[in-house]
Amino acid sequence: MRLMLIGFGVVAQSFADMMSSQSAKLAREHGLRPRIVAIADSRGAAVDPTGIDIPFALKSKKETGSLSDLGKDIYTQGKSASEIIREVECEVVVEATPSELNKGEPGLTHVRSAMKEGRHVICVNKGPLALAMPALMELANHNGVMFKFSGTVGGGTPVLDLAKKCLEGCSINSIRGILNGTCNYILTKMASEGVEMKEALADAQKLGYAEADPTNDVGGFDSACKLVITSNYVMGTSMSIRDVDIKGITEVTMDDIASAKARGNALKLVGVVGEGAKVAPEEVPLTHPLNVSGTFNAITFDTDPAGEITLVGKGAGGMETASSVLRDLIEIRKDFRR
Amino acid sequence: MRLMLIGFGVVAQSFADMMSSQSAKLAREHGLRPRIVAIADSRGAAVDPTGIDIPFALKSKKETGSLSDLGKDIYTQGKSASEIIREVECEVVVEATPSELNKGEPGLTHVRSAMKEGRHVICVNKGPLALAMPALMELANHNGVMFKFSGTVGGGTPVLDLAKKCLEGCSINSIRGILNGTCNYILTKMASEGVEMKEALADAQKLGYAEADPTNDVGGFDSACKLVITSNYVMGTSMSIRDVDIKGITEVTMDDIASAKARGNALKLVGVVGEGAKVAPEEVPLTHPLNVSGTFNAITFDTDPAGEITLVGKGAGGMETASSVLRDLIEIRKDFRR
Repeated sequence: MRLMLIGFGVVAQSFADMMSSQSAKLAREHGLRPRIVAIADSRGAAVDPTGIDIPFALKSKKETGSLSDLGKDIYTQGKSASEIIREVECEVVVEATPSELNKGEPGLTHVRSAMKEGRHVICVNKGPLALAMPALMELANHNGVMFKFSGTVGGGTPVLDLAKKCLEGCSINSIRGILNGTCNYILTKMASEGVEMKEALADAQKLGYAEADPTNDVGGFDSACKLVITSNYVMGTSMSIRDVDIKGITEVTMDDIASAKARGNALKLVGVVGEGAKVAPEEVPLTHPLNVSGTFNAITFDTDPAGEITLVGKGAGGMETASSVLRDLIEIRKDFRR
Repeated sequence: MRLMLIGFGVVAQSFADMMSSQSAKLAREHGLRPRIVAIADSRGAAVDPTGIDIPFALKSKKETGSLSDLGKDIYTQGKSASEIIREVECEVVVEATPSELNKGEPGLTHVRSAMKEGRHVICVNKGPLALAMPALMELANHNGVMFKFSGTVGGGTPVLDLAKKCLEGCSINSIRGILNGTCNYILTKMASEGVEMKEALADAQKLGYAEADPTNDVGGFDSACKLVITSNYVMGTSMSIRDVDIKGITEVTMDDIASAKARGNALKLVGVVGEGAKVAPEEVPLTHPLNVSGTFNAITFDTDPAGEITLVGKGAGGMETASSVLRDLIEIRKDFRR
């Protein structure tokens, strides 16, 4: 199966590493024989129809920041993702460029072009889904291709699959989730160590949990994306991020946290879909399974008649998220067989 | 699709009620048109190839404790489950007699006979699985029938499905679970209210969480059953309950609970499969997702590379467990279509 990687950041590199280092296991257990025929990053693109030498590509990226070490026959500086999506034959396109939440670009264009070319798409980029998920689902359907995005919610934790594959026969009345590990780390640290927001954020940045510009995390936008994706996929809504009432954690004070604690609760950034959709700081009872610490993510599906079902796991991480991309690929492979 | 219910306790009654009250939804959403053609309880059996009148059967059971109100043409006192399994044509047998953990009977005989007659089996009874799961899996395979048992672990919480359907491509290194709601209720109450074991148990009995003879729960045997089923299904082991090192909660003292707390932990009855299999009181960090309160069940799969994934939900309840039986039935129905 021929794959193309659009974007070559942490998740895509982890995924490429996995494809290369576990190839015997993938063939034996899943009948998967992946061949990565093209990789595009922000500087250029590498193309090799016989399969790119992945260990060498990873080494080049690590040492030079680009894929230039692969040599001029394979790597072309300035060659764009859009070009290779049009030009290079493959079965699956993995879109893993950074999430951009205003226009969803350039990911949205990549996903659309890939589908129009008849390629199955695995999207790890939240932008296109937060903005145009219903249209993309329809485009995939129209072009007869599969569209998977397990890695956009919960990192390696199978949030979307749990709801879709394991709750048949139940109705899901509402979703309530702690969907951003950075915010949860900050709020946990404020509550357990009594440090102010500013200090907790600086600490999160130092540890690599938060980016230099933390707006998407602390502003609640990343949580809102994941809420939209989960709700559309699981509850059949047709939302975009613009339909979510969003309030981040930037105004949370030590007083808010202390008074929540006095009521037997923890203050968390919670995304809710039930009557309407919103992301906001909310008190969660200390004894509720949703009350998870540190960088954990957690999501509670309120189901009928199985009751509240909560899934907890790491919400991020390169190898973890790459395992979601692999699950998507296994699903696509299964469908090939039918 | 013709079904037979063996055992007509809380779960089977809830399931029958669901089949009857949701028939339009089941047909519309899942193409399911279930017809319950026989029901056996400990006193006798009702048989009607055109489909038993379920609301009437439920009313009879409630008011008289038997199915006798269905009338002599349908109900025969003293008729055994084994007889109807042999005599009545159907596609699916639901085994829901009480779990018996020494010999697994009469459930084990029911399951075997049903498979030999070529019927698919949904088993809600832990006994046959705790004692003879590998043999039953093989017998099902040999007879070309499906064998499902989602309701034996976690009530309506899809513990087995999560591991089997949502973690493909990951390896599961170990399982760690709080699998018995009664014990968890008792330990939670001891810790939060400072009451002794004896009082907490009496309270659990009063609330209907524990049976008059609580041995299976507090002795750790129920947890061990669920651990065996999960491990065999998810990790491919071939264990029986005799392979589990079992210690219950009966000797837990207030001192044990207090010293766990002093170390930042909660004392829980934990089932573990990793190197060997055991059930015993174990300290769980207060901030770990496995530290759930009250009657909740929780299970943590330690996976590679997706990390620790924890599922939390109600571990019991008639309607909840019936929803697992329904999921099993939907799976069987899907396979029919292929």
